[in-house]
Amino acid sequence: MPKYDVIVIGSGPAGNAAAYALKEQGKNVAIIEADLWGGTCPNRGCDPKKMLMSGVEAKMRVERLTGKGFETSPEINWEELMAFKKSYTDSVPDSTQHGLASAKITTYHGTASFVDSKTIAVADQKLTAEQYLIATGQSPTVLPLEGKEHLRNSTDFLALEQLPKKVAFIGAGYIAFELAIIANAAGAQTHIIHHNDQPLKGFDRELVNQLVEHLEAAGINFHFNIDTQKIAKQAEGYQIIANDFELTADLVIGATGRKPNIDHLALEKANVDYDKKGIKVNERLQTSQAHIFACGDVLAKNTPKLTPVAGYEASYVVEAMNGQVSAIDYPLIPTIVFGDQRLARVGVSEKELAEHSEKYHTQTIDLAGWYTYQRINDQGAKIKFVYDEADKIVAITCLSQLADELINYLVILLTKQITHAELEKFIFAYPSPASDLSYFI
Amino acid sequence: MPKYDVIVIGSGPAGNAAAYALKEQGKNVAIIEADLWGGTCPNRGCDPKKMLMSGVEAKMRVERLTGKGFETSPEINWEELMAFKKSYTDSVPDSTQHGLASAKITTYHGTASFVDSKTIAVADQKLTAEQYLIATGQSPTVLPLEGKEHLRNSTDFLALEQLPKKVAFIGAGYIAFELAIIANAAGAQTHIIHHNDQPLKGFDRELVNQLVEHLEAAGINFHFNIDTQKIAKQAEGYQIIANDFELTADLVIGATGRKPNIDHLALEKANVDYDKKGIKVNERLQTSQAHIFACGDVLAKNTPKLTPVAGYEASYVVEAMNGQVSAIDYPLIPTIVFGDQRLARVGVSEKELAEHSEKYHTQTIDLAGWYTYQRINDQGAKIKFVYDEADKIVAITCLSQLADELINYLVILLTKQITHAELEKFIFAYPSPASDLSYFI
Repeated sequence: MPKYDVIVIGSGPAGNAAAYALKEQGKNVAIIEADLWGGTCPNRGCDPKKMLMSGVEAKMRVERLTGKGFETSPEINWEELMAFKKSYTDSVPDSTQHGLASAKITTYHGTASFVDSKTIAVADQKLTAEQYLIATGQSPTVLPLEGKEHLRNSTDFLALEQLPKKVAFIGAGYIAFELAIIANAAGAQTHIIHHNDQPLKGFDRELVNQLVEHLEAAGINFHFNIDTQKIAKQAEGYQIIANDFELTADLVIGATGRKPNIDHLALEKANVDYDKKGIKVNERLQTSQAHIFACGDVLAKNTPKLTPVAGYEASYVVEAMNGQVSAIDYPLIPTIVFGDQRLARVGVSEKELAEHSEKYHTQTIDLAGWYTYQRINDQGAKIKFVYDEADKIVAITCLSQLADELINYLVILLTKQITHAELEKFIFAYPSPASDLSYFI
Repeated sequence: MPKYDVIVIGSGPAGNAAAYALKEQGKNVAIIEADLWGGTCPNRGCDPKKMLMSGVEAKMRVERLTGKGFETSPEINWEELMAFKKSYTDSVPDSTQHGLASAKITTYHGTASFVDSKTIAVADQKLTAEQYLIATGQSPTVLPLEGKEHLRNSTDFLALEQLPKKVAFIGAGYIAFELAIIANAAGAQTHIIHHNDQPLKGFDRELVNQLVEHLEAAGINFHFNIDTQKIAKQAEGYQIIANDFELTADLVIGATGRKPNIDHLALEKANVDYDKKGIKVNERLQTSQAHIFACGDVLAKNTPKLTPVAGYEASYVVEAMNGQVSAIDYPLIPTIVFGDQRLARVGVSEKELAEHSEKYHTQTIDLAGWYTYQRINDQGAKIKFVYDEADKIVAITCLSQLADELINYLVILLTKQITHAELEKFIFAYPSPASDLSYFI
C-alpha cells in the first residue's frame, strides 16, 4: 500500500498550494482530485466568472459615457466571450496536474473515501499517510423543490454555449448577483427571485439597496419575498411557480447556497466530526483526529468562504502540520460583489454591527462628485465608514466601479495602521484612486 | 497699502493648498492669480487630460476584447467627449475663487510683480507681506522655429472643439504621448516627431520601446531623429519641414517642454535668484530672500514637476514658514504616462541607474500570461525590477493597463518596507491586481 507523509484531498487553491509547500519541506506528498484538477476557483468559480466580467466591465465603461463621448455601447457576443473564458479555463486541469507531477507530488484521480483514520481509498487503491489535509471545497446546493431537476447551477451558467433570451436566478447572494449582471449585460432578460427582501446579506443594507436600484436601472428584474415552490417544464420554457407569482424563463439557475463536499469521504470511518456546514476543526485547523487537518470552503466556519482565505488557511496548515503554531489568526478579509458597480466591504461583520448598533456610528461619503469618480461617470459611488466608540474604523463598505481597488488599498492602510498624517506624506501617481486615500483615513 | 502675513502668488494645487493651510494657522493671507483660478492641473493639465483619457480607456477596454466578446470597438465622438471634459473644467475657476474667498483668503486677479523684497504690485495696487510663497508653475515653451506662430500647445489641444483629421506633435515627452494617444483613439491620424530616438527619457528604455511598438500598432506614427526646422502654412495645412523630412498636418502641437512662469515677477527687484530652469531655493524651499519661499513647478529642481509633488512641497512650506523644520525630504515619487497601456515608474532615476549600471541588476517579469492581465487581454504587460548589490529593490517600471494601480500599491509596500512574509498574510479582494502583490516583493 503506497505510504505518504501527507495526503491532500482536493486540488483547489487550498489543496494545491498546501501540496507544493509540503513538498518543499521535503515531504512525500500525494494529492487526490475527484473532479477537475485545480478545483472550483479556476475552473468554475472566481476566475472564469471574472473572464466573463471583463466583457461587462468593458461594455459598461462605454455605457457610462454614452452621450459623454460615445453614441452607443457595444454589444457582447456571448459565443466569443465564452471562447475567451475557455482560452483561460481549458488548460487549467492539465496544467494543474502537470505542475503537481513535475514537482514530484503524486496525483490520484478519483473519489477519496476514508477506510479508517490512517487509510484512504481512491480508484480501487488504498493509500496511507501520516497526516491528511481535507480541502474538498463546496458545490452548489439543490433546492428541494418539485421540478428541481429543471434547475441549473453556476457551473452550468459559466459553460453556456449560447445565452438564453430569458434567465432567472433563484437566490440573491453574490453568485446570483454576479451571474445576473453578466447575463443582463450580455443581453438576456434577467430576473433575480429571492425568498426575502434582503439580498446580499452580509453587506451593508443601505448600499445593497442602492446597488439593487442601480441594477434595476440597468435592466435586471428583482422579485423579492417570493418563496419558489415548483419548477414546471412548459413548451415555452421553465415555469417558476410560487404563491401569487409565476415567471417562465429559458433557463433557471439555482443559486441558493453551497454545501461542503464531504458526502463521499466516509468521514465517520475516520472518526472525523462534521455537521451540515462542513468539517469541524479546532483553532489549529485539526479535525477531531489530530493528524487529519482541513481547510478552505469545506470547513464549518464563520469566516467567509473565499479563495484567498482558503489559501491563507493552507499556508497555516503547512506550518501547523509540523506542530508548534499558535491558533490561526485571520487578517482583515475583504469581500466583494463584482460587476460594473462593485460592492466591497471589510471589517467587523454586519451581524455584529447590527447586534451592537449602539456601539457604532457611521459616515457615508458620496463620491460621485469627486474627480476620480466624475471622470468615469461613476454615478452612485459611495463609501461608508463604521466607527466604534473610540472613533476607530471598524468596517468599510464601498459601492463604486473602483470598489475593489479602493478596498484593497484600505486593507493595507488599516492593517499597517497608517495614520492620516503619515498618508499625507505619500506621493501617488496622480490623478488616481490612491491619490484620494488621505481623505478617508 | 494692504498688508498680509503671507501673500501666495499662483493659485494652482500648490498655492491653493498652502493658502488654505496658512489661513488655518490663523494667518492673514492673500493669493494672486494671473490666469485661471486653480492653475494648470485642474484647468488645462492632469485633470482635463484624464477626463478625455476616460474615453480612450473605455474604447480600448473594448478594443482589447475585439474577437473576444465584441465585434468592434465604439467610436469616440469628440464634441461629446470635450463637453464631458468641460462639465468638469468649466466650474473650476469660479469654484476655486469662491472657495478661497469663503475661507476669508483675499484674492487678487492680475499679474504680480515685485516692487521690492517686501512689496508686490498687482492690478495697479501695491501689497505688502511678511512672507511670500511663489507658486506660479510653468507654461509650454515655444520652439524658436521659423513659423513658430503656427504651433499650438497642450492647452490648445485640450480645448479643441473639433478634432482635426491629422495632428502632429513635436516632442516626445509624456505630454506629447498622452495627447497623441487621445488624438489617435479619437480617430485623428496622429504623428509624433522627435529630435532624437529617445522618447520619454526618464523612463526605462526597454519598456519605452515596447510602449512605442504598442502605440505604432494602435496607429500612431513615430518619426525619430527629426530636427524640425520650419513650420509653413500651406493651403492643405501646416507643413513641418526638416532635412529629408516633410509632413503636413491640420494641427501641429509643440510639446517640447515647459518653462517656469517667472518672466513677469520682476524677481531681480526682490533680489530673488533664479535661472532658466526656475527659482532657486535652499533645502527649506527658501529663495535667496529668507522670507520668500517657492514651491511646485516654478522651482529649479531635479525632482519631477508633478501636482502631488507640488502639494507635498506646499505642505512643507506651510510648516517651514514658521521655522524649525528640517530640510525637505521627499518620499518615493511615482511618475506615469497615462493611456490605454500605461507606463509607470518609481525609484532611483534612470540617469543614476545608467551612470552606475555596474551596481544594479534587473529582472523583467512578463505579466501578459498572468490571470489578472490575461483577463483584460493586456498583451505586452510587463514589470521590471531594478535591485542594488544587496538585492534591495531600488526602482520599478511597469507597462500595463493596470500600471497606475500597481505602482501605487508598490509605493505603499516599499515605503512601509512590507516584506514578502508579511504580504503573504494579507487577504485581498480576489482576483485583483492586489492579490498578485506577494509575487513581486
